[in-house]
Amino acid sequence: MSRSNSTILLSPEELSLRLSHVTKLMRTDGIGSALINDNANIYYLTGRVIDGYLLIDSQSNSMWAFVRRPSNLEGPTTFAIRKPEDIPAILAENGITIGEKVGLERDNSSWSTIHRLSKVFEDREICNIDHVLLAARSVKTPTEIALIAESGIRQTEVYRKIPSLYQPGMTDIDLQIEIERQLRLAGCLGQFRIAGDSMELFMANILVGDNADNPSPYDFAMGGHGAHPSLPVGADGTVIKRGHTVMVDANGNFTGYMTDMTRVFAFGEISDMARRAHECSRKICHTLAEIARPGIEAKYLFEKAIEIVKEEGLEDYFMGHRQHAGFIGHGVGIQINEHPVIAPRSRDILREGNVIALEPKFVIPGTGAVGIENTYVVIADSPMQCLTTAPEEILSL
Amino acid sequence: MSRSNSTILLSPEELSLRLSHVTKLMRTDGIGSALINDNANIYYLTGRVIDGYLLIDSQSNSMWAFVRRPSNLEGPTTFAIRKPEDIPAILAENGITIGEKVGLERDNSSWSTIHRLSKVFEDREICNIDHVLLAARSVKTPTEIALIAESGIRQTEVYRKIPSLYQPGMTDIDLQIEIERQLRLAGCLGQFRIAGDSMELFMANILVGDNADNPSPYDFAMGGHGAHPSLPVGADGTVIKRGHTVMVDANGNFTGYMTDMTRVFAFGEISDMARRAHECSRKICHTLAEIARPGIEAKYLFEKAIEIVKEEGLEDYFMGHRQHAGFIGHGVGIQINEHPVIAPRSRDILREGNVIALEPKFVIPGTGAVGIENTYVVIADSPMQCLTTAPEEILSL
Repeated sequence: MSRSNSTILLSPEELSLRLSHVTKLMRTDGIGSALINDNANIYYLTGRVIDGYLLIDSQSNSMWAFVRRPSNLEGPTTFAIRKPEDIPAILAENGITIGEKVGLERDNSSWSTIHRLSKVFEDREICNIDHVLLAARSVKTPTEIALIAESGIRQTEVYRKIPSLYQPGMTDIDLQIEIERQLRLAGCLGQFRIAGDSMELFMANILVGDNADNPSPYDFAMGGHGAHPSLPVGADGTVIKRGHTVMVDANGNFTGYMTDMTRVFAFGEISDMARRAHECSRKICHTLAEIARPGIEAKYLFEKAIEIVKEEGLEDYFMGHRQHAGFIGHGVGIQINEHPVIAPRSRDILREGNVIALEPKFVIPGTGAVGIENTYVVIADSPMQCLTTAPEEILSL
Repeated sequence: MSRSNSTILLSPEELSLRLSHVTKLMRTDGIGSALINDNANIYYLTGRVIDGYLLIDSQSNSMWAFVRRPSNLEGPTTFAIRKPEDIPAILAENGITIGEKVGLERDNSSWSTIHRLSKVFEDREICNIDHVLLAARSVKTPTEIALIAESGIRQTEVYRKIPSLYQPGMTDIDLQIEIERQLRLAGCLGQFRIAGDSMELFMANILVGDNADNPSPYDFAMGGHGAHPSLPVGADGTVIKRGHTVMVDANGNFTGYMTDMTRVFAFGEISDMARRAHECSRKICHTLAEIARPGIEAKYLFEKAIEIVKEEGLEDYFMGHRQHAGFIGHGVGIQINEHPVIAPRSRDILREGNVIALEPKFVIPGTGAVGIENTYVVIADSPMQCLTTAPEEILSL
């Protein structure tokens, strides 16, 4: 495979669109410059991952790259560095001036990294820039939406194969291995980006039967015991038995942009309550997809979901049974947990171009987890568009 | 599967041994208390992952757990919290006093997390604790060494199957998928812990032919173009052809503790220089394993390796060709990149119980990557013991 040596792999129009998303928000907050180091943010602004820094000037809409690795990158605004302390001299030599207030990624970078970078710009006022990048990245460009849609199509194709991967006697881990292999054979990149100090994720999470009710330390919608106490989430070696549900929550990263989709499979007949809760999840997704529009509060979607759950009398099982998750949806894109967050105290307002995974799920004791998850795009003047279109019914294994 | 609800899954003796490793170093540095939040450090001190904090007092060798999730943990020194700001009141109610100087994980936690925790202990002096944990964790207990050794045995079994997984016409990615599947079927947990702000890792890295010479932004020993610019490392879809080497660097996490092993396979005859460089890598490993003893400087091992490489006239190809890595080995355990670091400016001194992956590798243009990687234990008065014992020769596919 060949790949350009240009630091920027985005088209000039796409770069301009993304950069202007960021700099507009910077100017609103009075932030003159930003130094970007996080892989997800660098990918957003260049179309590749580099070991180094992007410096953004919000007044001139300009961006410079200071690259440690790889060693072969080229571009009119690209400078090779060995360490961040090299940056001020390069700025001086090239007559580049930066703003009085410099934003650093205080939520994403370690204290030690920020402490070091703050010394590099010790004559400036330092502030946080992560909320700006989160907000900019939450409104996807048409190019980004197309990349997410492509991931959805390819992920859906793999989901259609899941019933054929099941063999009698399999454990949840056995099935997980075969699903992950099919995802990879279909082009899934095999690595997922996730934000947060202590978040770790498998390519595919499979919850079978009562393992869905085991609490986990991770801030995901569902829990699970996990195969080992060092990674206590998801599949735990449960043999798939008659009357169990099998929840498959795999992430579709085929394009550098992800979709998130959950479907439920069953072996044999499952309880009526489980079927009813699954239909309730579908009703929530369809209702929220119908009412979500630019300008709607994210927390209103959460409240609407709770209203539907209460009508069905299913609140004890919603978003977990022994332990409950505090959200029913989240933005998705370069990372699996972006903005907006669909939660009771979310201050996010939906905007055109948001891409949101909705996952109203239930844990029914004795049966397992039910419910669906779809990835949707927020559109002006029409219902959200669903990008994950595998059949939503509980399919038999 | 059942698992105890006890916060501490380690035996009392094992906990005492690990905790005393940590508190001894804390006392040397005059650090009275430490608040631990990082998954790897929490796993070291409890045998499980929790969402919450461990508070350590270095004078009394005591530890308390403040747990947000999972919701079902129990123990005489375990307290449920909703947020870290709840901790001071719990300390006061239970008559727990903490030291004047409180260590936080400034290298591992985000600036924002440290800023928030510093406010919780605003009446105390705050310092870094990560170097203490790194140093403590670098000296493995007998129990930890046994868990690493078990991973090595199980990883070696999978490596023996690699030639049988190859099918003519396969790309590097195709082979990677089948190796990763075999690792998972053998019980590999499928997730690797790695330290560092911007480090991301596949379960198995495969480098075929000249792709090994493509520079990558990541701080690994070898590079590779990667399948996509969003994850520019490792396999890139190169079809395995006659005269290529196939380097397999997969991580063996079967027990919560990892081994690191690299082996090279070839399809057809490869160049004499590649064979010579491969033997040079083996010679370096065997020589360093022979001379490494408690008290030896880590940088001396690096210097000795360079000496051997220069004797063979292979320095242009050592640790990369177009881009060179700055180290030839690293500690391994709960994370894949622990201490000591075998690098020219390392200040680490080898200690009994260190577990070190040595990976003196070469990139030969036109052929690919060669060399081996083994995981060794540092032992008093004898050569290091090798825990990764797959055949070291270049095997035919």
